[in-house]
Amino acid sequence: MNGLPKQKKRSLPNGIYALTSEPHSLGRNNIEVANEILACGVPILQYREKSKKVRKMYEECLALRALTQQYGALFIINDHLDLAMAVGADGVHIGQDDLPLSKVRELVGPDLIIGVSTHSPDQAQAAVSEGADYIGVGPLFTTKTKVDVCDPVGLNYLDFVVNNIDIPFVAIGGIKEHNLAEVINLGARTVALVTEIVGSSDIRGKIKRLQHIMDTQTFTSPKA
Amino acid sequence: MNGLPKQKKRSLPNGIYALTSEPHSLGRNNIEVANEILACGVPILQYREKSKKVRKMYEECLALRALTQQYGALFIINDHLDLAMAVGADGVHIGQDDLPLSKVRELVGPDLIIGVSTHSPDQAQAAVSEGADYIGVGPLFTTKTKVDVCDPVGLNYLDFVVNNIDIPFVAIGGIKEHNLAEVINLGARTVALVTEIVGSSDIRGKIKRLQHIMDTQTFTSPKA
Repeated sequence: MNGLPKQKKRSLPNGIYALTSEPHSLGRNNIEVANEILACGVPILQYREKSKKVRKMYEECLALRALTQQYGALFIINDHLDLAMAVGADGVHIGQDDLPLSKVRELVGPDLIIGVSTHSPDQAQAAVSEGADYIGVGPLFTTKTKVDVCDPVGLNYLDFVVNNIDIPFVAIGGIKEHNLAEVINLGARTVALVTEIVGSSDIRGKIKRLQHIMDTQTFTSPKA
Repeated sequence: MNGLPKQKKRSLPNGIYALTSEPHSLGRNNIEVANEILACGVPILQYREKSKKVRKMYEECLALRALTQQYGALFIINDHLDLAMAVGADGVHIGQDDLPLSKVRELVGPDLIIGVSTHSPDQAQAAVSEGADYIGVGPLFTTKTKVDVCDPVGLNYLDFVVNNIDIPFVAIGGIKEHNLAEVINLGARTVALVTEIVGSSDIRGKIKRLQHIMDTQTFTSPKA
């Protein structure tokens, strides 16, 4: 496709894929919140920040890179591949309106994980053929975390991905404690939550309950 | 400083350093405006865009890279070093709140021109010692082009740079046809203009008048 060697298929850890969102973090900063999250054994943290100056984001990402390394978690940066390269993140997550995936791969090299947000079967298949390491699948439910988010894609799309896409995926968008079991039951094994975690006054308690739901449902789900 | 080989000193072409600003372009898009500008022999074009989606910026920059190549002009991209690398721009221009210069150099390699906005003697000297290829000096006058711009630095700062900094510089910020001679008389040889050019209904006529002022003043200026 782009002259680069075909990437070997990577796995994505099962469990919670947490994202930062300081405006929803009840006054706590991203580092404090990430500390709480990572201490619970969450295996993936994405830094998503839309409005800070690059230098400030760089400083936060340096701190989060050290923290995620300490806890053995993957560190993914949203959009900013220059930042991801600058701090040695494990990966970069891009949307449909970012640089073309083949160009991103060319710039970041073969080792960085590239995740791509997808909202339809066509986009999922395109991401696979262009060499994404994983895809985001959503938004599954209505969400107010992002301002420029599209309408919910519906659970049928998640079902399509479970049954037709053979690279890892993360379910995302409006997932909360009360609908997590439904998502797991449809076959999701990696689940992204933003406001539900960073907006909780008791992040550790919240994550324990989410992890319990994921463990229980995975065990009983027919898709497991 | 950062283990990289010392950059050889580059020159910056004398003349107009034009910047895009679609919101000030009287309804014309960046490509139309750039066409007019480059047809007048302007030697440097910077793409500065704060609000478009990355994919859109990428497409515009691909077109502008082709255009600048056709006209033999330098193509510099503001802030987005990933974009600069993706389209093979000649350089990237960063501000005081972007990634540290040493990190930018590490990412873009030795060949890309790196320009840095500076607003004080300390910042100018830091940029030189960190390996900037050129500095921006300003804003010299009040400007409404940028929303997050600092107060004018005053012409004393330009005078300081002319007499103390030995890398190329570009004067910027609120420079118009009526105050251009003053800037040239202080010793500027590369002058950035944004709204004065892109906001003109007759870009070619405007640039001809600006070029005439620069040519005449440079010839008579004691600093020449």
